[in-house]
Formats: sequence, C-alpha cells, structure tokens
Amino acid sequence: MKDERQMLHSDEVHEECGVFGMYDFDGNDVASEIYYGLFALQHRGQESCGIAVSDTEGPKGKVNAYKGMGLCNEVFTHEVLEGLHGNIGVGHVRYSTAGSSTRENAQPLVLNYVKGTLALAHNGNLVNAPQLRRELEYTGAIFQTTIDSEVIAYHIARERVKTPTVEAAVANAMKKIIGAYSLVIMSPRKLIGARDPYGFKPLCIGKKENAYILVSESCALSTIDAEFVRDVEPGEIVTITKDGIVSDKSMCLPKEKQARCVFEYIYFARPDSVFDGVSVYGSRIYAGRCLAKDSPVDADLVVGVPESGNAAALGYSMESGIPYGTAFVKNSYVGRTFIKPKQSSRVSAVKVKLNVLKEAVAGKRVIMIDDSIVRGTTSHLIVKMLRDAGAKEVHVKVSAPPFLYPCYFGTDIPSSDQLIASGRTIEQIRQIIGADSLAYLNIERLKELSEGLPICTACFTGKYPVDPPTEDIRGEYTK
Amino acid sequence: MKDERQMLHSDEVHEECGVFGMYDFDGNDVASEIYYGLFALQHRGQESCGIAVSDTEGPKGKVNAYKGMGLCNEVFTHEVLEGLHGNIGVGHVRYSTAGSSTRENAQPLVLNYVKGTLALAHNGNLVNAPQLRRELEYTGAIFQTTIDSEVIAYHIARERVKTPTVEAAVANAMKKIIGAYSLVIMSPRKLIGARDPYGFKPLCIGKKENAYILVSESCALSTIDAEFVRDVEPGEIVTITKDGIVSDKSMCLPKEKQARCVFEYIYFARPDSVFDGVSVYGSRIYAGRCLAKDSPVDADLVVGVPESGNAAALGYSMESGIPYGTAFVKNSYVGRTFIKPKQSSRVSAVKVKLNVLKEAVAGKRVIMIDDSIVRGTTSHLIVKMLRDAGAKEVHVKVSAPPFLYPCYFGTDIPSSDQLIASGRTIEQIRQIIGADSLAYLNIERLKELSEGLPICTACFTGKYPVDPPTEDIRGEYTK
Amino acid sequence: MKDERQMLHSDEVHEECGVFGMYDFDGNDVASEIYYGLFALQHRGQESCGIAVSDTEGPKGKVNAYKGMGLCNEVFTHEVLEGLHGNIGVGHVRYSTAGSSTRENAQPLVLNYVKGTLALAHNGNLVNAPQLRRELEYTGAIFQTTIDSEVIAYHIARERVKTPTVEAAVANAMKKIIGAYSLVIMSPRKLIGARDPYGFKPLCIGKKENAYILVSESCALSTIDAEFVRDVEPGEIVTITKDGIVSDKSMCLPKEKQARCVFEYIYFARPDSVFDGVSVYGSRIYAGRCLAKDSPVDADLVVGVPESGNAAALGYSMESGIPYGTAFVKNSYVGRTFIKPKQSSRVSAVKVKLNVLKEAVAGKRVIMIDDSIVRGTTSHLIVKMLRDAGAKEVHVKVSAPPFLYPCYFGTDIPSSDQLIASGRTIEQIRQIIGADSLAYLNIERLKELSEGLPICTACFTGKYPVDPPTEDIRGEYTK
Amino acid sequence: MKDERQMLHSDEVHEECGVFGMYDFDGNDVASEIYYGLFALQHRGQESCGIAVSDTEGPKGKVNAYKGMGLCNEVFTHEVLEGLHGNIGVGHVRYSTAGSSTRENAQPLVLNYVKGTLALAHNGNLVNAPQLRRELEYTGAIFQTTIDSEVIAYHIARERVKTPTVEAAVANAMKKIIGAYSLVIMSPRKLIGARDPYGFKPLCIGKKENAYILVSESCALSTIDAEFVRDVEPGEIVTITKDGIVSDKSMCLPKEKQARCVFEYIYFARPDSVFDGVSVYGSRIYAGRCLAKDSPVDADLVVGVPESGNAAALGYSMESGIPYGTAFVKNSYVGRTFIKPKQSSRVSAVKVKLNVLKEAVAGKRVIMIDDSIVRGTTSHLIVKMLRDAGAKEVHVKVSAPPFLYPCYFGTDIPSSDQLIASGRTIEQIRQIIGADSLAYLNIERLKELSEGLPICTACFTGKYPVDPPTEDIRGEYTK
Repeated sequence: MKDERQMLHSDEVHEECGVFGMYDFDGNDVASEIYYGLFALQHRGQESCGIAVSDTEGPKGKVNAYKGMGLCNEVFTHEVLEGLHGNIGVGHVRYSTAGSSTRENAQPLVLNYVKGTLALAHNGNLVNAPQLRRELEYTGAIFQTTIDSEVIAYHIARERVKTPTVEAAVANAMKKIIGAYSLVIMSPRKLIGARDPYGFKPLCIGKKENAYILVSESCALSTIDAEFVRDVEPGEIVTITKDGIVSDKSMCLPKEKQARCVFEYIYFARPDSVFDGVSVYGSRIYAGRCLAKDSPVDADLVVGVPESGNAAALGYSMESGIPYGTAFVKNSYVGRTFIKPKQSSRVSAVKVKLNVLKEAVAGKRVIMIDDSIVRGTTSHLIVKMLRDAGAKEVHVKVSAPPFLYPCYFGTDIPSSDQLIASGRTIEQIRQIIGADSLAYLNIERLKELSEGLPICTACFTGKYPVDPPTEDIRGEYTK
Repeated sequence: MKDERQMLHSDEVHEECGVFGMYDFDGNDVASEIYYGLFALQHRGQESCGIAVSDTEGPKGKVNAYKGMGLCNEVFTHEVLEGLHGNIGVGHVRYSTAGSSTRENAQPLVLNYVKGTLALAHNGNLVNAPQLRRELEYTGAIFQTTIDSEVIAYHIARERVKTPTVEAAVANAMKKIIGAYSLVIMSPRKLIGARDPYGFKPLCIGKKENAYILVSESCALSTIDAEFVRDVEPGEIVTITKDGIVSDKSMCLPKEKQARCVFEYIYFARPDSVFDGVSVYGSRIYAGRCLAKDSPVDADLVVGVPESGNAAALGYSMESGIPYGTAFVKNSYVGRTFIKPKQSSRVSAVKVKLNVLKEAVAGKRVIMIDDSIVRGTTSHLIVKMLRDAGAKEVHVKVSAPPFLYPCYFGTDIPSSDQLIASGRTIEQIRQIIGADSLAYLNIERLKELSEGLPICTACFTGKYPVDPPTEDIRGEYTK
Repeated sequence: MKDERQMLHSDEVHEECGVFGMYDFDGNDVASEIYYGLFALQHRGQESCGIAVSDTEGPKGKVNAYKGMGLCNEVFTHEVLEGLHGNIGVGHVRYSTAGSSTRENAQPLVLNYVKGTLALAHNGNLVNAPQLRRELEYTGAIFQTTIDSEVIAYHIARERVKTPTVEAAVANAMKKIIGAYSLVIMSPRKLIGARDPYGFKPLCIGKKENAYILVSESCALSTIDAEFVRDVEPGEIVTITKDGIVSDKSMCLPKEKQARCVFEYIYFARPDSVFDGVSVYGSRIYAGRCLAKDSPVDADLVVGVPESGNAAALGYSMESGIPYGTAFVKNSYVGRTFIKPKQSSRVSAVKVKLNVLKEAVAGKRVIMIDDSIVRGTTSHLIVKMLRDAGAKEVHVKVSAPPFLYPCYFGTDIPSSDQLIASGRTIEQIRQIIGADSLAYLNIERLKELSEGLPICTACFTGKYPVDPPTEDIRGEYTK
Repeated sequence: MKDERQMLHSDEVHEECGVFGMYDFDGNDVASEIYYGLFALQHRGQESCGIAVSDTEGPKGKVNAYKGMGLCNEVFTHEVLEGLHGNIGVGHVRYSTAGSSTRENAQPLVLNYVKGTLALAHNGNLVNAPQLRRELEYTGAIFQTTIDSEVIAYHIARERVKTPTVEAAVANAMKKIIGAYSLVIMSPRKLIGARDPYGFKPLCIGKKENAYILVSESCALSTIDAEFVRDVEPGEIVTITKDGIVSDKSMCLPKEKQARCVFEYIYFARPDSVFDGVSVYGSRIYAGRCLAKDSPVDADLVVGVPESGNAAALGYSMESGIPYGTAFVKNSYVGRTFIKPKQSSRVSAVKVKLNVLKEAVAGKRVIMIDDSIVRGTTSHLIVKMLRDAGAKEVHVKVSAPPFLYPCYFGTDIPSSDQLIASGRTIEQIRQIIGADSLAYLNIERLKELSEGLPICTACFTGKYPVDPPTEDIRGEYTK
C-alpha cells in the first residue's frame, strides 16, 4: 500500500516536448507571442523551457536566448521577455526522464556554425542517435548535451559546408537521422520547420497578421489569436523567408508508410488541437463511443478520471445514453513542485490529488473511463475510493488498448516489467485494480481514431514502423 | 477592448481565508497533516500561508511557526515541515486585497500573552474592527498588522487576565467582536474552535485515529483520510484538551438569526465539501435545475464555464434533458504567478486561459452556465469565443442572482460602480455580454440552495444580518 | 583539533545592532541615504536589516517598510529602495544569537498606536525586559516578537495616551526601562533620538544639506557625505521636527554615572568613527602603545590579526620602534554565507580564512596583536600557522583585558565556562595558545582609552553599572 | 563629477580565471577540496564558477558537474558538494566582460568525445581563436559557447582520434592554439595540466596526502593544507595517472622566449602566492622599495590604497624610513552584488567603499601608494578625500608603469582611449588627479619584480611576445 502511494506520480505516460517558431515580417518582437504559445504547449513538457530570438535585419548571428528549468511562468518574467528583442525566434518546452533533466539539455539549442547561428527546437527521439554520435565522435566532434538535437545540429552543420542553403542541409541531414522528429530551426534569416517522414509528431503552420508560425499543436494558435494554415506533412521541410513559404517534399514517404503517434490522439495532445486534420477531442469522443459499442455494461453513471478521461466518458454517455456525471474533484494546485507525502506519512498522495463526490456516486453503478492504465496502482486506489463513497459497482473502461511495448520515439513509457498489462490477462488486471468489470479499447479501433490516417501503434502491438535501436538509447551520462 | 483584457484576472470574487487546527493525543507531529489540509483549502486563499505548532507535553509557550507569501507548495518544503515539531497546531491560507498583502499579515498570528503563547487563525471580517482598534489604542495597545485577527487576539488576551480559562476569555471576547469569524486558536495545552453566532463562515470537526481536527471545509478531511464528526454550530466554542471535546453554546443565537454565506454554496467552497449538513455539489446541481425550471430555453448543448460552472451545467442538463457537454479547455498552468499579457500585447489573457472546442460547439445552440458575472468583461469575451467557434446561439445562465451590494464579512466583491448589474436591467447586461438570452438564478431560490438553513444574501439583496460598518474598513495603512 | 575548527566562527564577540534615522526638510526621499548609512553600519549586525519611511506631508500613519534576513545588499535592491517613498525614515541592522534570529524580530518595528504610526529602531538590551513584559501581559498586552524593542514600544504607546507629545511619552517610558538603548523613533511628523542615561551605546547627530540624521556611528555620516553635528548625550532625548531640533536632558544622570561600552573603542565601532568625542582609531593606536609600554618584548616584527588587530599593532610599532608588518592574507570572500568545512572535512576553516605570508615572517621574532581572546581556539591555530611559516618566536599581545564576565547590555559574550580566561592564569592561557609570551592590556589603562570618559568595564571587572537581571534574559521562545 | 562616481566600479583591471584540479589516489571525494581551492582563487574570477568530478574506478564518462553564476559561496551548498562524488575533478572561477557573462560560458566545459568525457578548465585567451573557430566551422563544427576553451576542446578531440593518448592529443593541439593558457583537463582516468609555452599564466603542482593537485596559484594549496611541489613549466604538459606524474616538455620554448604576465606580480595574484619561484608579496615590497629609491619625496606617512597598495606601501616605508600607516577604512561588505548609487543619487560610490581616517592623516604630508591608475577617476576622488581630511600634501606613487596598450592574453584592460596615461604626460595626469606629485614605477624595474624571469610587459610597452590578433577577439555573439 505504501509503495502504491509513491508510484502515483510516475503512474503516467509523458510526452517529451513542444516546439514553437515565429517569423514576423513587420519586424515586431516575437518573444511574447512565443511565450504564450509555449504556455499553451506546457502539457507537452514541464521540466525546462527556453526561447531564442534574433533580428532578421540585424547583424547575422546575434541571438538572444533565455532558458531555464521549470514551467514557463517560473522561468520567464516580463523583464526577461522584454529583453528578448528580435522578429524571428524559436521556443521549446521539455520533459525528460530524471537522469538527464539538466539545464544543459534545455532547448532551443543555440550554436554558432559555419554560416552564423542556428537555434534548434526538437520534439521526438532518434533511433540511431547512439550510432550517429559515435560516428561524429570518430571525426572529432564534441558533445555538450545528451539530447538528440545536438546530433541533428551536427549533421545540419556538416551538410551546410557542402550545400548552398540551410534548408538543403536539413534535407541532407534528414537522410541520416532516423526516428521521430518535429523540428523548428532558426537560421539568421530563415525559419525552417521539418517533420520526419513517418510523421510521428505533429507540426503545423499558423499565421497572425503578417507573421508565420510553426508549432507542435494547433491549440497554441488559438491561444495567441493566430489562424491555422495547414499541417506540415510528414517528411516535408518548409522554409519561411521574407519572400514567403517554400516547401520541399522530396523526403516524404508514400502515405502508407506514415506512422503518426496514436497516443497524441488518445492522451498527449490538448483536446482543442487538430492533428493532421483530425480533431483530438472528436477522436476521444469517438473512443468513448467505441467502448460503449464494443463492451457495453448496464450502469447509472459514466464518469471520467480527470482531466483526460472526461472526453471519452462524454462519448460513452452519448453512445450509451447512460448519464454523464462528475465523480471527482481534482486539487488544481497539485503542480510540478508538489511535496509528495513521504512513505512514512499517514497521508495518501492520491487523496491529496483527487477526492470523490459522495453525493454524485453513492448508491450508483458507475462506469469510470480512464485513458490508460500504466502500472495500475492509481487505478486500484481510485476504484477503492469510489466504493468507499458508496458506488455499488465500478466498471473500468480504458480508452486505449493495453500498453505492452516500449516506445523509442519520444514517449516515456516504462519498461515492460513495470507495465501491469505485460504478461497478464485482462481478468487478472481487473482483479488487481478491484473493478467489477474492465474493458480496453479494441485494438482494431485504433486506426479509426485517426479517421484512417496511418498511425504508429507500436506500444500496443510491438510493430515498430522503423527498427528500434539495438542499444540502450537511454544509457546516457549524467551531468 | 484592451481594458477588458486587463480586467480578466480581477473579474472574480475571492474568498478570504481557510483555517485548519489539529491536536494529536498520541503525540505525533501534526505539521504534515496540517500542510495537506491547507493544500485542500488552497482555493480559499492563495496569497500567504502558515503553520504554527507546539508540543502539549513540552515547555509552555514553545511555538514553532513558519509563514510565507505564496501557495502552500511554494512556501513549504519537506525540510521545513520536518522542522516543525509538535502534536498540536494551527494553519492558515490567506487571500487579501492588494494593499495589505504583506508578510506581516500572514497568519497564524503567533503571540506571547499572559498565559504563555497563543496562535490564532481566522477566516472572516469584523464589522466593528476599526472601533475596537481605536478603543484598544486609547488604552495603550500597539498593532503590528492590519488584520482583524490582531484585534481578536487583543480581546482574548485582555479577557484572559480576568478569566480562569482561555475558552472563557474567547467567550467574553465574542461579546465584543461583531461580524464574520471562524477561529482556530492554539493555546499551550488546548485547541479551540469558535464560529461567530451568525455562522457566516464554515467550520467543522474531524477525527483521524487519536487526533481531533478543526477545519474550514470538510473536503480537507477526506484529503488527509480523516472522518467528518460534525459542524461547529454558529456561536459555538469547542475546546479540545487531552480530556476530549467540550462545547460552549452560550453565545449561540436563535437559529433564525443565523446567516450562512450563501456564496459558499454557489462558488467558494469546494464541491466535495458539506457545509452545515448541505452538500455543496448538491446545492450547485440544484441551482442548475432551478435555472432549467425557471428560465428554460431550447438548445442543443449545456456547458459550464470551468471549473465552477460545471456542476450547475450538469444540473441544468439533468433537469432539461439537453445534453451536457464540454465547450472549453482551460490551461491548467495558469496560476498565481501567471504573466498577464501587457495592454500593449497582441495576446488576450482570456484566450491564454480558455480555448473553445470548435468540434463540440460548431453549429449548436449552446447554454453556457457561469456562477456569477462580476464586471461582465470576461463573459463578453467568452460569449464571443463561442460564436467565433460556430455556436449558432449562446444563452447565458448564471447560477446566482446579480451582485448588487458590497460584502463586509470577508468576501472581496468590488464596489457597486464596478458591478455590471448595478443600475442595469438584465436586458442591458445581456446586450453588453452579447448573449442571445440571459437569466440569473431567481432570488427566491437562494434559500433552497441551503435546504432551508438561514443564509446571508446581502450581496444580492442589501439586507445585512448585522449593521455594516459606518467607516471604511479597508482604509488601512500599507506596510 | 576538530572541535577547534568548528569553533572558529563563534570565536568572536558580536555587537547587536546599528540604527539610522533621517528627516529631510526639503521633502526628498531618504530611503537611499538610509540604505548607504546602514551599509556603513553593517559591521554592527549582519543577520537582518530594514528600513521604514513615511512622508511628513502625507496622510498620518502611511508607512512604507521593507525588512529581511541578511545583509543590506542581499535584502535591498534598487527597485525596493525606489519604492520606499518618504522624507522621514529609520533603518536598522541587527545581529542576534541563533535562537531568535527570525524575520519577526527584524527591525525597525512598525506599529499603529493611538496617534497613528510609530517606527522604532533600537540598539542595546534592557536588563528589566522580562519583568516589564510580565507586567504588560498582566494588563492584556500581546507580544509578537522576542525583542526588547517591543517592550519599549509598548511603554511609549501607553504613556502617549497620557502625555501631550510623543517625546514626553518617550521620556516617561525611559523612567521604566533600564539598561542599554540607543533609539531612533519615527512618528508621523517627528524623528526622535534617545540614548539611555548610562550612554552604553553610541548615537550621534549629523546634517546633510537640509536634512538631519541620527546614527549609531559617525563613520556612516562620512559615507553619505553628511557632516557630524554632535553626539546625543547619555540620557538625552532629541526631537527633530520641521521646526528644528529640541533637546530634553531631564533624564540625564550625573556624568560620573555614565558607562560607555569600552568594547566599542576596542573592537565594535569602525576605526573611522568618533564616539563621544574620542577617535576609535586613536583609541586603538593608544591601546597598542600601552601594550608596548607595559609589556615590552624584543622582536623583529609587529603584526595585527586582521582586520581589527591592525591599529593596535601600528600603535605598538610606533611606541616600540619595532617595524610594523603584514603577516596574514585574509580571504575577503568569507562572508555570512560561507560554507564552513564539516567536522569530517580535511580542510580547516581558519586556513580558508587566513593564510600566513611566509616571506614576511620566516626567521623572525613576531609580536602578534589581537583585540581579544574569547575561547582561545583561533589564537592557538594562528600561533601555530606563524610558527609553521618559520617565525622564530611568537609573542601575543591582546589590546583588551581578559574577558571574565557576561554582558547584559547587548553584547554577545559567551558564558564564563566558555571563556578561556575564566579560572585560568595568563601563564596557563599562554600554554594553551602556544605563544612564547602573552600579555593583555592592563586593566588600569581602560579608562585612558576613552580619554577619561566614564566607561562600562563589566565584562572585564564584573562591576555592572546597573544591576544585572535576576532571571535569564536569553530564555526566550523560538518562533 | 557624476560620471566619475559611476566609473568607480570599472576603474579596475580584472583577471579572467582561476583553475583547480585534483586526483585522489585513495579514492576520496575531491569536490570539497576543490571548492575551498576555488574559494582561495576567487579573486581571479567572481562571475561564475563550477566543479566537475568523476570516479576513476567508475564507468568511463560518468561525470558529475555543477556550475552557476556568482561567487563560490553563492553557487555551492553543502548539499550540492556532497552530491558531487568522484576522486578526480576540476574546478574553475571565471571573470568576463559583460557581453558574454552567461551561464553557457561557465566552466569547466564538460563534453563527450571519442574517448568518453573530457572536462576542461582554462585560464587565458588565445590570439588565434577567431581563425581557429572559422577553420573548425568550415569542417562542420558547432559552437555552443563563446569561450576559447571550446576551441581548445575541439582541437584536443580531433587530435585524439589520431593519437594514442589524450596527453599526446593535448600536445598536438598546443601546436595550433596560440596565446595564453593554463589548462587543467580531466579525462576519465587522467588529470592533465598544461601551460602555454610563453608561460603567461601561472599553474603549479601540489600534493596532499595521497592526492595531486594542479592549481593556478600556490595560495590555494595552503588553504587546503596541501604542500607546494613545483610550478608547471611554460610549455610543459603534466599527466597524472594512478601511476604518478609524467612530464612532457616537448612544447617548451627557450627560456628567453617566456613571457610571464608581470601584472600577476603587481596586482592579480594573491600576495601569499609564489609564482614561478618568486614571492608575489616580496615582489610588491620590492616595487615599493624601488619607488622610494627612484622617486623619493619627503613626507610624514606612507599609506597604501587598500588592499592591493598596502604591500608596496610597506616596501616604500622600509626603504625610505618614513612611517607606514593606515589612512583608509574599506567597507568589507562591498561585494559583487553591491547596489551602486545611481547617477541621480546624492551618495558617492567611492565614499561608500572607502573612508579616510582623519586622525591618521590630519596635518600630515602623505605618500599614497596604488598599484595602478586606469581611468584616474578614483584616484582623483581619493586624493581629494585625503585633503579634505586634513592631509597637508598628497604624493601619489604607482607600483607599476602607466598602462598604454591593450592586453590580448586574458586581462581586461580597457581600450587606450579610456586609459588616462594614453597621450598624456605624467604632469598632466598629476594635475587631473590633483596630487602634489606623481611617480610611476620605472619601466626598467619591471624585470626585477620577477627576479629576472622573462616577463610580458606589453600593456606598458606595446611589445607583444606573440602577434596580437588582426581581428577583434571581443566581437562575440551574445547569448
């Protein structure tokens, strides 16, 4: 029981990054807009953030950057933002596993290279980063961070020596780097966006007055009152200069090879984002509907585990006609710096975070929708809380299939031995979490979530769109 | 338009405080439990917090206290909590208007007096504090804060000289102080709770293993796994010593004179709290039902303005049969330290905080439930956002009557000239906020929210249960 | 040996406070001048500091104050100083023993009382504070700090009810408070300075353009380019209003009862201060001359233990003709926040602070002058360092008599059992510190240091000018 | 006059760095010793500091590092130090000009390269860094800092691919890098020290128990109770492995080409350091003697401008027989974070820092010794302060020749147009500073300061030991 409490915080799956780039042709400073854009992407990374800006009319290579550990509102102040002058810029929010959560690894990576400066913000993970690092080292390269972005930067820099433009260097670099990446790159006079040919991670284009934007999720466009233009296609490189946008699709793969991360639809992305034309909110409503269709159960109330289970619960309610309700109150002050109760404490972290509305559930048969079960410890506690509050039955529905395989593309799914679904039947899991019934999203339904767009389902199926790395990509040195 | 943006943050009504006291008869340290209790009361005050503890078996008057500006998780660390030894203690979270938001005013107030030490945590506002201060000053008293709690402390100290026990001194002091107060007081060997005879503010008793708790809201009992015992009655003084609980009801008024703050039900209290036997959640569901009954409108969707409008929206949906849905995504990282966009910014604070789910509202007739309209600026913007997202109609329902009068009992309602409802018809307000229709909760319904318990409705009706102060109680000196 | 290392930091005697008040008749802000004045008094207290200002033409009782733990340059910023508007103000720097080194105790004490506000800065210790506290408590007073200043404030407030002016209230209060105090008090329209009748602590008057200053030491006047006017006399109350300075000497004692702290001359005060007409530097030079006259020894070099031993060393050199030199390099980055080596460390705190100039002492017979020996641990280490550097002989001269008795007037001298001189002969001490010879300042010389002004020599002689307290004045509660 | 005040802080010449490396063969952690070593080198750099440690028996390339802006005691805590496990490590303190004073540039530089990790600490400046950067960029290198150390690291990394050992790679790199550098490098199993062939900057070897140390100045050895072994020779590479020390002198130049920075003797180094066999203290005493011999003047008192002028003043006194005295009291709390008075302030920064001892100088003819006059603004003010205090005459002696030329080897001497001596006769300077007479150290004396060791005197003579850079080495990009 004590162990379970402690695992709460890690009983979630984490995204690894969000990127935001902006180029204002009218010469206005972009730092403030980038800040609010990052703020809207904060759910994609809470450990560090940074902004680098430059002036396209100023001296080449004069970059102002500010990075720090923590949330956007912890790192930045009005004073800092006002000191970041420049009409072109990139920003980044980052999540990472504990070992490499250091300030050195904060992005954007800002560097001097043969043609001045380059600032690079990256979302995703390469599968061949270790090999590429080693190859570079054998030609005398030095690495000051443990992030893949530095490997990408090196390849761009080396290609730039041989190619006429930075976008061509990016294209050449893309021939060597393999894996998941959505990139936003600022060179002295250009803003470049690139998405890996599989399209694992989102990246889209926005416009606000006379400025272009490149951003991980469309929700951030609404936040700053910008309009959505279109998604960057998997494999596409878009180059924004004062003359407008140029697209290079030479690196694109046939559509059927694409492999969007389906977990963006299920959990990562904000519901108000639209990813490659598919509404994330609609996708979650649909997942709820599927659960109602595929594994119906008689009950009095459908509730979501906040926040992410709510949309699927609504979908379940719509499909089944069973009333939607609220069963939980979440303490909205539980943040990054929350002091977790110690093992010796008589207080449970789950109860600090969530409380049950007795009034709402007492005497009722409850369907509880969650987006995933990782280790199962939290689910067990929440089911028990519902019962203690008087729920007569608790039926758990998960709006995703069971996690069975690690992700090598930028998602922090724990290793198999920590996944409750690994090596267990659904009935065994049901017993562990103490539910009256348990159902997962049918794996066949996954492709419907993206309205038929090709997706990566490796964490559920083990079918990796590209070969996973042969060596441990997490075996990095600590700084 | 610029002005409207800036007013967003102040377009809310604030509670002023939350209190938490605990006495563990087994001698266990209580600081950690108080911390998590305050954490559950954080919505009642975000500007400062503090904990004072003592050891009932140690030397009389040895108090350990720690206070600071900010949220609980900003002020306290494991290290600080572990340094706060003692099996009896009080804690406090505080909100205040800007002028007196200083560290000096943070509570609990810790002081030495004739019988050792006293630590006092207070929720509420006295109406006769200025007179009492002046009277005390004319006998040579000095004041180091601008909080009413210091006036209360003085009266207790002066009475203590003449009375055999501290609880008797509290009772005597209560004969002089007039207004709203829920108090938790720690004297060297006792924990005392007292609630003003009108019962403006909540205060209840809990129990966990061999410890008693006094706390503003019952939700905090669930958080620390304690059980609810009962409410402290309006006018009651409860004294907890190692021999148990003793109650003094000599200060109680006839029930019909009681005047619970109805806004606790409507907005302040957490929905998972039960205030004087009435579920706050149930009260809000009921308010929604009333709106559906009293001012029905044909529509496709009922949504709440997060978070506080959601319960009433659910009630409206239940009563009307119109489907409940989610229309807004709230950025959960907007916190106390949020950098608001400057007036000159091209970014709107409302959009940074809230985004509309187009998918959910496009083409629909939407009923939007909010718990109050203060200045009206936010409502205007949100209605517009719904329309921009494609809502065909927007009908606004408010789960409270219009604010018309100031509160003198601890709630930060702006003066009449800033209240949109002051001097305007509902039709005029509707036009200002741009809704297709607008309805408020019928004022007759208010008493039903508390299931018939006597309430204070002064902010809506101007009928004050006690005479409001004749001089400005906010005219305090700044430190 | 390990113990010795750890004791280094506490092997000093500490002053307890410095005060600074200013009243600018031209209406200029005084916060900046007070800041630099406190900066010049920083040696008198390094644990907390604060400034309170007011506007003599503004609303009565509108006080701006800022206090914090740490040095002036840690607590204040340009931004804070610029926010402190007012043409009248008081400032304070404070040292305290560990137990009560809390923010609550930081001064100036700012309070509301019968006539508006009072800000009070105090240097010294009362001997009857515990009795006075108890008496006040028996009339219903509450205490929020553990500093004597609050007792003084109470007396002034109570007298103020009965007297026509605040200066009369101060005079009446002075009839009750006994001990050491130099006070600077700001009431809404007046700046008041008072010095206890014994004159333990310094206080003088300065002038800069059209502003008057009250300050602990004259060195701070030079710092802000003000001129010295005169000392406040022991027992005198000076009241500065827009009409000028008024003096009240009704509380003065016959001169022979005065008892200036002789340790101000020997160690506390900055050498560039003049205390009651006697140059501190001159006094130290004279002490060195006395040592040379009274206990001459043949040697090649006279050196001071930095910084405070240097002036006496120079005096010794002048008198004896033995060349003055520098034997030590002090690390000037050792500050308040210095991380002392742990007991388990292989590094000695003394060596981190001081290093010997081998070049200067090798092969020489050295006379080393220090201003005091408290526990003796540091002296032992320094003598050894000189020998290790090649000094042939090390003769230690102390520019004060041996410490034998505790101080009750505001100086942090450890209790007798920790004083090396207590119960030991000089020969025994010499052996412990390992010197070739040891001499203290002859006790008869003390009165010559102040050029005949009456002094308190209680810490050397046990002859207290007022009766010491009968109960432990340090037994305070911890916050 | 206002301008003069503001220039005070910049009216000094700054050193750029200090380095410290340690290898403990017994496996003890070295972080704590490195910390105290850096503490003793703090005068060489106050803007950032850092420590990187590794375990020679642990996995290759596992490095723990911690860097930050500020002084050692601001950046490090016991907790941080205790988290830095490893028996081999390097540390660094850094000063820089404002533009590039960023956290990114803090050292040691820690990087992964072909053979694992490398941590590098560097004191000095290369004259061909811009060319080397450009050359590296043309082969695809990326730079993340603006410090020369990154250029050095690249060369070592590239050479390492082709050479069998890291020390051989260092030797090869030294063939390309030109300028001033004292390096301490930690590779997984080795600690390497190297000094440029000219020997501009100091570097010496120490020993403590079973550990070797490489450090900028010998004073830091005393601080941690280590013994001095010998200096690293100009051009020498020493490699410390578990088998002991190996020396490579293949890069050494003929002795007459060596060019030690003479300003280390005059001002930079701590007086208790011995640099290449010559006592810094002795050197300064000698400079004072020379001034007395070469430009004698009749006077009553010789004083130094603290702290650095004191040793030369003592030398002058010894030689001339004129008594040495103290004229100034320096406020020892003026630190890095000192709030300088604003231009509009009525307070002078010089007076905040220094005060004159009237008692010591009144009525006297004073000889005042300073180590340099940069812009002359401070000198002017100090001379005036002496006169205001009653000095009858003020004769200024400078223990160095006039600054006339910029330094390209790591010293922050302002450009010629800001140097008072540039284009002025000594008589003109005398008039500006208002002295009765003025004399500089005779330029012929410089070589005697180093007891005949070859020195660099470029800042006085313009004779650069290596060609200065043809492009501005300070034109760096800002991060």
